[in-house]
Order: sequence, then C-alpha cells, then structure tokens
Amino acid sequence: MHILIIGAAGMVGRKLAARLANDGTLDGRAIDAMTLVDVVTPEAPAGFTGKAVIETVDLSSAGEAERLVAKRPDVIFHLAAIVSGEAELDFDKGYRINLDGTRYLLDAIRIAHGQDGYKPRVVFTSSIAVFGAPLPYPIPDEFHTTPLTSYGTQKAICELLLSDYSRRGFFDGIGIRLPTICIRPGKPNKAASGFFSNILREPLVGQEAVLPVSEDVRHWHASPRSAVGFLIHGATIDVEKVGPRRNLSMPGLSATVGEQIEALRRVAGEKAVSLIRREPDEMIMRMCAGWAPGFEAKRATELGFTAEKSFDEIIKVHIEDELGGKL
Amino acid sequence: MHILIIGAAGMVGRKLAARLANDGTLDGRAIDAMTLVDVVTPEAPAGFTGKAVIETVDLSSAGEAERLVAKRPDVIFHLAAIVSGEAELDFDKGYRINLDGTRYLLDAIRIAHGQDGYKPRVVFTSSIAVFGAPLPYPIPDEFHTTPLTSYGTQKAICELLLSDYSRRGFFDGIGIRLPTICIRPGKPNKAASGFFSNILREPLVGQEAVLPVSEDVRHWHASPRSAVGFLIHGATIDVEKVGPRRNLSMPGLSATVGEQIEALRRVAGEKAVSLIRREPDEMIMRMCAGWAPGFEAKRATELGFTAEKSFDEIIKVHIEDELGGKL
Repeated sequence: MHILIIGAAGMVGRKLAARLANDGTLDGRAIDAMTLVDVVTPEAPAGFTGKAVIETVDLSSAGEAERLVAKRPDVIFHLAAIVSGEAELDFDKGYRINLDGTRYLLDAIRIAHGQDGYKPRVVFTSSIAVFGAPLPYPIPDEFHTTPLTSYGTQKAICELLLSDYSRRGFFDGIGIRLPTICIRPGKPNKAASGFFSNILREPLVGQEAVLPVSEDVRHWHASPRSAVGFLIHGATIDVEKVGPRRNLSMPGLSATVGEQIEALRRVAGEKAVSLIRREPDEMIMRMCAGWAPGFEAKRATELGFTAEKSFDEIIKVHIEDELGGKL
Repeated sequence: MHILIIGAAGMVGRKLAARLANDGTLDGRAIDAMTLVDVVTPEAPAGFTGKAVIETVDLSSAGEAERLVAKRPDVIFHLAAIVSGEAELDFDKGYRINLDGTRYLLDAIRIAHGQDGYKPRVVFTSSIAVFGAPLPYPIPDEFHTTPLTSYGTQKAICELLLSDYSRRGFFDGIGIRLPTICIRPGKPNKAASGFFSNILREPLVGQEAVLPVSEDVRHWHASPRSAVGFLIHGATIDVEKVGPRRNLSMPGLSATVGEQIEALRRVAGEKAVSLIRREPDEMIMRMCAGWAPGFEAKRATELGFTAEKSFDEIIKVHIEDELGGKL
C-alpha cells in the first residue's frame, strides 16, 4: 500500500508519518511506500522499511496535484494549510492554499477516477474553527458552521467539497475536525491559543509560562497522539457506516484552564504550578470568548474515534511521548 | 441609485425587475438605472422611467464580473444559477457557473473595494437545498448544511464566501434561502418538484394535472410575490442587526399536499380538485422524502421577512398576479 501525506512537515504530519513507519501496516496491509510532501522539506520517518519519497511541493502550484495523484496512492492524508492567523492577515494566500490547493487535489483525484476508476481514501484535517460564536455547550453534531475567520471559512468549504465529491463516488473522503491539540510540543509560539499548551509544557520542564486568561475559560482539547489516532481511524473506517455526512467533530476533552492547572498539580506538584505567571491579556481574553467550549461528538464516538478522558492523561501522554517517560 | 440584477431573465429575476420598475424607488431612494443581465437576453421591465441596460452575460467568462462591477452598482442581486438537475448531470458546468461564477463576482467587488472603498449591498439567492436528509421538522436556524446535491453544495459554499467577504468588509452581503416557489407560473416543467405548483396552477385554468406523490407529503412554500419581497427586504435591511451570520432561512408555509388540495377546493371548488389525476411515481416519492418539510425561520421572521400564512393566500396571490384577479 502507498500512502501520501500532504503537509508532512507539520507537527501532526510528522507524528503521523512516525506512527505509520512504526506500525508498518495500515488496516492490516503492509505499507510499501510513503510519499511525504510539504512546502518545507519533510524528514523521512526513522525506521521505515518501505520506500520513502520526500518532496518539497506547493499544492497550489499548477500541475502539482496531478503529479502527486499520478502515483495513485491508496490513502491520501491532506493536512496542509496556512494557519488561522496567516490566513486572516493574507486573504489571497489563505484562499489560494487552503481552498484552491485543496480543490486542485480533489479535482486531480476526480479526473484520475474518470480515467481508470481510481478511488483512494482521502482523510482531510478540518478544524473546530468551522464553528463561530455564539456557541452552545456542548455543541451538537448538527450545529451549523458559521466561521468567524477566513481559515474557518476555507475549512468549512473544503468539508462541503469533500462530502459532495465522496457522494459522487470520486473518492472516499473523511473530514476530521480536530480539537485544539494539547500539549503541543516545541517552543512557546505566538498563536493566541498557545497558552493552553504553554502553561503545562513549560512548567513540566521547570520553565515559567504565561497565562493570559482567567481560570474559568473552557476549551476543547486532545493530545497529539489522539490526533494521529483520529487520522489513522479515519483512514480505515467503513465509509458506508459514516454515510453522506463525511465531516466529523472529533471527541476530545472539555476542560477549564483551572482544571488543566489542577491536573498539572496532581501530576507534577505544586512547584510546577507555581511557574505559571498570570498576565491578563484583554485581546486574548476577547478571542477566547468566541472559541468552542466543547462538543457532544456523538457520531464520531459511535464510529469508534477516541480521545483522552482527563487532563492527567493528556499530561501523561506528553511525558511519555516527548519527555522520555519521566519528569 | 443603480441596481444590477444578475439572472434577470429567470422567473424571480423578471418579477424582481418588474417590482423595482413599478416601485421606482428602493429604500426611499429613486432608482436611476437598472442593469439586467443573464445568459439569455432579459426583457426590459415595462414602465421603468430610469435607464435600463440589458445585457447577455455569462458571469463565468473571464472579465465579465469586473465589467459589471466597474459600473459600481449600489445594489447587486445575484440570482443566476444552473438549476439543481442540470448541476447534478453536468458536474463541471455546475461548479463553473454556481461556484466559480459567484466567486468571480465576489472577488471583483473585493478588488473594487480595495481600489476606492466601493461597498455595495449584495443579495444572493441561496436555497433550502443546502440542507440534506435526514431533516427534523421544523428545521431550526442553527441546523447544519449537509447538502445531498452538487447544487446544494455550491449554494452552501457561496453562503460561506458571502459571510466571510461581508465580515471582511468588502461588501454587505445577505443570503436568502428561498423556499420552494409556489405557484410557479408558466407551463408544467420536468423539475421533480414541479407538481407542487402544477396541481394548483393547471386546475385553476381548467386543465388536468398529475400528482405523483401521496397527500401526506409535507413541504415548504412561498409565493413568487413573497420571494421578490424577501429580496427587496434583503436589499434594504440593516445589516448591523443581521450580524455575522448572513444567510437566512426565509419564512414560508409548511403544508402537506392534502392541505394544498383542500385550499384549492375552498378557493376554486370541487371541479378544480377533480382535475388532479393521481399517478404515483416511485422515483419522485423517493426524492420527496429527502426534501425539507419546514423551517422555524425565527431569525428571518424577527428581522421582518414575511410570507403567506395559508395556501388559500398563496392561491389568491397567483390569481391576482397571473390570472388578472379572476378565475
């Protein structure tokens, strides 16, 4: 089996490639080849025994989608996107990469389908940014998508294309609405939502972290390991059971910042908690007020997608996967 | 004030132009000019005292959107679309006209906005086809859009673009999700939903009509006069009151076929009803099962959009507007 990962240099893409390399199989079939592409050159996953092809590709450039599809990969993970902040700052770039790039890919598959009946599985990473305030808590599966960012709009549009092209039989698409990933590994970044990870990751290694909002802010989380699990499950699930509504809000953990901090206290003690410095930020507080507090995720749960049930678990996953299992 | 109607040769476009010509004003301002365009040449509305420009235009052709926007119309009604059946049969044409054509228009306005701050009102006709079965009754305003046709997908995508471009400040967009228009004037056509109109319109003039479904089929209706009213109200409503969710399910009348027939009996008598011939059609019955039975339409109602309250009223509107006021 041949797997294509578009957006393989990103955090989730790297972890997905590593997991697939480690498993060596998907859905019981040996993975003979992986093609890993991104706008920056991805790394080859360690220990992969199959053929790894690494390429630097801009999906929104003419002919690139056709070229990737020409190899007829059995499964395509499409994770590539301009992030929310950049898509908001650069209108043209956001629509070009996030909407047009995706459409080029879906159309290249459609045309290949017309040529020889090619019909891959397409796993698309969508986002809870397809939802916009005011939002109920929990958000039901049947809630409308009224995004308040261009990024969320582009994801919501691609979801619609994914469903329609799947209904038409061009491929088997599954759209995965990822929760906010926590704990995000790496350095603190400037994303407005970065603090959800920062206030855990930094204190776990004895570093200070800034908390810009109050402890009653509620949000929706899943670990990087769960995110990869969603994508793998999306690649192997029986699409007949999914039916025509191909975009699923993933399960996750709804927690307040206060609950995150209590979990940190239980797992790493008072000293870790004392490294969180309160620096209220009006702008981030206003942005937070519009973010999704949590989802029912009934359909995805019934379809076998699973996530962490407590923040203690989320922290332990980080310690296992990023800190070699110990504090 | 200058008004542009794209799709002016269609049934609703013709009635909209006629209403505007008759009113002579919109929102208290004199209508100096109307530009009426369509892929088939529209007719100039009778009695219009301003300047009427009639053009044959394919919005999906290069440069046409820019050319239309160059005249800086104050209000743009965008009604042009390939209908559902054709968009399903011809995938490329449906996406080209219904999605790309609309995007060309929105982008042409966006670029004009960047040049000189141009910011027109854009009234877009969407459709209840953005919803796909299984559907609750009544459908709440916050129900998700999971279309089961390419036409519905294209309309749902354009709704998302309309909201995002409005949020960005490029124009003031309003998306109008029209109910099924009943009684549609003219000859019986081959649309699967045509019978809702046929079983009233034909008997009213002494002609036979075929009913292919059972009398308990429930659907969502508004008269052509109401449809024009929605568009006019959408062109004049305070967008601040609408907020960022710019696409509205219009009010309408939820009625069963049996209730339609009872109204026909009250308005036109037993003889008219006897002209309805039952010819069950399995395919149409199956399609009907997926159509929207009715909407809450709370937001649109609160925002002042109004429709008929009974089928007697819908039939009387047809008699007034199409049959010169008498049977």
